[in-house]
Amino acid sequence: MRFRVSSRIEYEVRSPLVLLLNIRAHASEPQRILKETFTISPKVESELVITEPDKNRFDRVKVTKGGRVRIDYRAEVEVDHRLLGAESLRKVSPAHLDQAQLPYLLPSRYCQSDLFGRFAWQKFGAIKDAYDQVLAITEWIRENVEYIPGTTNSFTSASDTVTQCAGVCRDFAHLGIAICRALNIPARYFTGYAYTLDPPDFHACFEAFIGGYWILFDATRLVPANALVRIGSGRDAADVSLCTAFGILRTLRQDVRCQVVDQKLFQPLTEEELSGTAVSLDIKQT
Amino acid sequence: MRFRVSSRIEYEVRSPLVLLLNIRAHASEPQRILKETFTISPKVESELVITEPDKNRFDRVKVTKGGRVRIDYRAEVEVDHRLLGAESLRKVSPAHLDQAQLPYLLPSRYCQSDLFGRFAWQKFGAIKDAYDQVLAITEWIRENVEYIPGTTNSFTSASDTVTQCAGVCRDFAHLGIAICRALNIPARYFTGYAYTLDPPDFHACFEAFIGGYWILFDATRLVPANALVRIGSGRDAADVSLCTAFGILRTLRQDVRCQVVDQKLFQPLTEEELSGTAVSLDIKQT
Amino acid sequence: MRFRVSSRIEYEVRSPLVLLLNIRAHASEPQRILKETFTISPKVESELVITEPDKNRFDRVKVTKGGRVRIDYRAEVEVDHRLLGAESLRKVSPAHLDQAQLPYLLPSRYCQSDLFGRFAWQKFGAIKDAYDQVLAITEWIRENVEYIPGTTNSFTSASDTVTQCAGVCRDFAHLGIAICRALNIPARYFTGYAYTLDPPDFHACFEAFIGGYWILFDATRLVPANALVRIGSGRDAADVSLCTAFGILRTLRQDVRCQVVDQKLFQPLTEEELSGTAVSLDIKQT
Amino acid sequence: MRFRVSSRIEYEVRSPLVLLLNIRAHASEPQRILKETFTISPKVESELVITEPDKNRFDRVKVTKGGRVRIDYRAEVEVDHRLLGAESLRKVSPAHLDQAQLPYLLPSRYCQSDLFGRFAWQKFGAIKDAYDQVLAITEWIRENVEYIPGTTNSFTSASDTVTQCAGVCRDFAHLGIAICRALNIPARYFTGYAYTLDPPDFHACFEAFIGGYWILFDATRLVPANALVRIGSGRDAADVSLCTAFGILRTLRQDVRCQVVDQKLFQPLTEEELSGTAVSLDIKQT
Repeated sequence: MRFRVSSRIEYEVRSPLVLLLNIRAHASEPQRILKETFTISPKVESELVITEPDKNRFDRVKVTKGGRVRIDYRAEVEVDHRLLGAESLRKVSPAHLDQAQLPYLLPSRYCQSDLFGRFAWQKFGAIKDAYDQVLAITEWIRENVEYIPGTTNSFTSASDTVTQCAGVCRDFAHLGIAICRALNIPARYFTGYAYTLDPPDFHACFEAFIGGYWILFDATRLVPANALVRIGSGRDAADVSLCTAFGILRTLRQDVRCQVVDQKLFQPLTEEELSGTAVSLDIKQT
Repeated sequence: MRFRVSSRIEYEVRSPLVLLLNIRAHASEPQRILKETFTISPKVESELVITEPDKNRFDRVKVTKGGRVRIDYRAEVEVDHRLLGAESLRKVSPAHLDQAQLPYLLPSRYCQSDLFGRFAWQKFGAIKDAYDQVLAITEWIRENVEYIPGTTNSFTSASDTVTQCAGVCRDFAHLGIAICRALNIPARYFTGYAYTLDPPDFHACFEAFIGGYWILFDATRLVPANALVRIGSGRDAADVSLCTAFGILRTLRQDVRCQVVDQKLFQPLTEEELSGTAVSLDIKQT
Repeated sequence: MRFRVSSRIEYEVRSPLVLLLNIRAHASEPQRILKETFTISPKVESELVITEPDKNRFDRVKVTKGGRVRIDYRAEVEVDHRLLGAESLRKVSPAHLDQAQLPYLLPSRYCQSDLFGRFAWQKFGAIKDAYDQVLAITEWIRENVEYIPGTTNSFTSASDTVTQCAGVCRDFAHLGIAICRALNIPARYFTGYAYTLDPPDFHACFEAFIGGYWILFDATRLVPANALVRIGSGRDAADVSLCTAFGILRTLRQDVRCQVVDQKLFQPLTEEELSGTAVSLDIKQT
Repeated sequence: MRFRVSSRIEYEVRSPLVLLLNIRAHASEPQRILKETFTISPKVESELVITEPDKNRFDRVKVTKGGRVRIDYRAEVEVDHRLLGAESLRKVSPAHLDQAQLPYLLPSRYCQSDLFGRFAWQKFGAIKDAYDQVLAITEWIRENVEYIPGTTNSFTSASDTVTQCAGVCRDFAHLGIAICRALNIPARYFTGYAYTLDPPDFHACFEAFIGGYWILFDATRLVPANALVRIGSGRDAADVSLCTAFGILRTLRQDVRCQVVDQKLFQPLTEEELSGTAVSLDIKQT
């Protein structure tokens, strides 16, 4: 499916600073950038930094004086969401994970999986297949956590959410990741553009590593998995923050869009289909 | 029922300090002290302090030099556990609570009811009667929190327990209290001697204010409610700590006992009975 | 000094609920209410509840249907701030505290003094007199915590503030209280009207129990201590919240005023004077 | 300097599980393994996993049945601690960091640098050079945090330590890292063998990225920096845990040793020297 994504963000900065922006679409199989433009006004020096091993694409922007800075990004992206039969996906034991997946088993800033051991095994330990386990986790989250913008902030973590039972996509993802890791299922945070998200915004969900694939899961159920375009992935929101500022800034405006080029071709993956069909935005990992 | 309770505690203190001990049986209706002895070895000055309005009985002990201090307490106590038909107990609206019950609606150190609003209403809000609500809370706790000595410490609070899903009687009580208060049901921490508790120790559970009575609830289900002898009650463990030391001490030994005088007369209240029968260790509050 | 205080608050409520308002001036020596009016529009049933032992005056308001509710309070209050020679105030050992002061040594929801033991003794343990200790605590807070509205919320506690180093009057007070209690100095939260506070608002600071008096301390230094009119006092903000709502409400407007009747007579207590002069808004406790 | 290091660890496992051990000495310049043996008793399958980009060497051990498992590791390691003139080390702006260093600017599970912004800039922001800043951070930690085994556990994080003011090497390191990152200085957790550590044990400290080098800092000051042999480095203790167990195990015994081969040649780096001499256990990063 071909997507047109764009974001226009306007910041006010007080004094020179460096920004690390993470708003470009990812450029790794099965997602290809057909064209893209990235402009900063007023024009300042910037540099594309691609992280290893995740291939996240950061724009490092050197703002040299205070004032307003506007970022404009537009891209056309071809994304081949891979649909997989869920029944074929087996749990990968920590005994067989590659070193690249191991960090995604460990606790991180907002996903304190070390605290969730009993919680996870008690509630989801008896479910046989890993895919069904993670699906049950997302259902539990959706039933127990209310989606309410404004109830959480950038410090909120999975252990806060399990008490406070409210949050936004970021919080839903962090909680899902923490529980997966506690069950020894590698899980990572996913940020992206999302077609049909209303109101339009950047979106976050998570991927669990099952059957050799990073499988997409979205506990918010706000968009179908095949409507997602990857920006980046990491241990949690800290790794793929839309904007990491090494200095003080204020966001004045943020305008995010995501369209499919030929809307007639788009078939949203229904919730029922999800119980049998896994969606991956990555290639098979050996 | 007549109980014989005793505790022998031995501390090592480094230097002079004041201890506030809360180990005496409570002496208010429907609990009467028939006889009691309280001795400190070596002999040091001490004073009985009774708090208002809870009538907790603290021994303030002034240890004047370093070394070992042994506390011996023995009492014979007549306790008339009041059994009440649960169906007759109505929720008391905050509109009709007395000023004495109001503080038990507010968050405290280990019972952060302010964090538990959504959690509580989501899980227990739909249950019609307050007594059934609190019973459901205790059942939820027992199903979701494992009783495992050594997993928590004196800093552990209700919001920790809901993530970590393990704890001891103190943690079970704190979580129950936090949830009750979030539902606008006054709840307080109860410490006591407990007949049939194995291994013998001080015990903690909680009381919820329903139908004009402080009703006993024990999420651990380790002892029947009619086997409890009150030591004290307060907002949480901080208020009725067995020993608040204003200085540094080490506990060397602690030996707690609780017997009924005529064991043949004791009829443990079964779990089934609890669903219809409420137990109160207090008189009706106007 | 005679003060005129007023507050007008407008809430929007969705459905019937009970409010517990704590906005009336305290009516205990050395503070006397000369006249006061309290009106609710539209007119609904309300009741004055005075708590023991703190004599806080709560208005319990029973809102019977959704819509806007406006509260108007006006009072004229005579306040005799007692000025005491700081050098005469001796620390009161826990050995000599009355049962009424003991709860103010214990940790509470937002003042986790149990966590602050080493912190407190390390930084302030060597200071000889209790009054100087508390003054040093307020100076440390003012130097290390920035007063920045909007950085904290109603869940923020002393242990958050010591890491995040920002907050408002409520947070400054909670941190001061936590440190005092860790040093075995009883401390309580104070809310009040404050003359010269700019912009006008309710104010919070704290009282420490020294030399038989509850002495006022304000780590924010935003107003002189003799410009304060007590509303209430408690273990922390939970006990004397401006408004505890047993239901959902939204604050639409809040307008707070505090004037002295004869401004020519008002002599603000300077910061220099504070190092020798303690201010109490309470009578000597036996 | 040539070191002989060894560790013998004995676990009791209940049922089959996978262990990820991180006890081997690192094998990257300027540290070379001259010889090493790694044995497991009873003999079970194991595999050496080397992580990218940190080159940590994990032994993945597949324990196939319950019982005791003993791990024996011995190595002889040549370590060329690089001594650098501190005055030549300039702060590297986030504008010039390589993608490999960027993750070490972000908050992690035990190092919540996002919470420490004001704390860090207030206390250390005015210090001119990055090396002096980090040295000041370690001095602040040593003065404000007491080294007391048993006061913390595996859940303890930097924000706990700053309130509780006690901990062990792990906690000292986490706090140092959190503060560095808040100042935009990349910082990572270091685990190693440590000559002269008494009692002998694994040791933890941290590295800050300054002047193109990962420079060693140890807020505990328990061993000289040139007595350290690297095991691994990561975002915090989660990444380089001595043992990550995917199942339940109990440690029965742990015996760690570190000697220099020719003790006459060892010149401990004094604390005074540290103010001018930086120590690196890594090669210059471009």
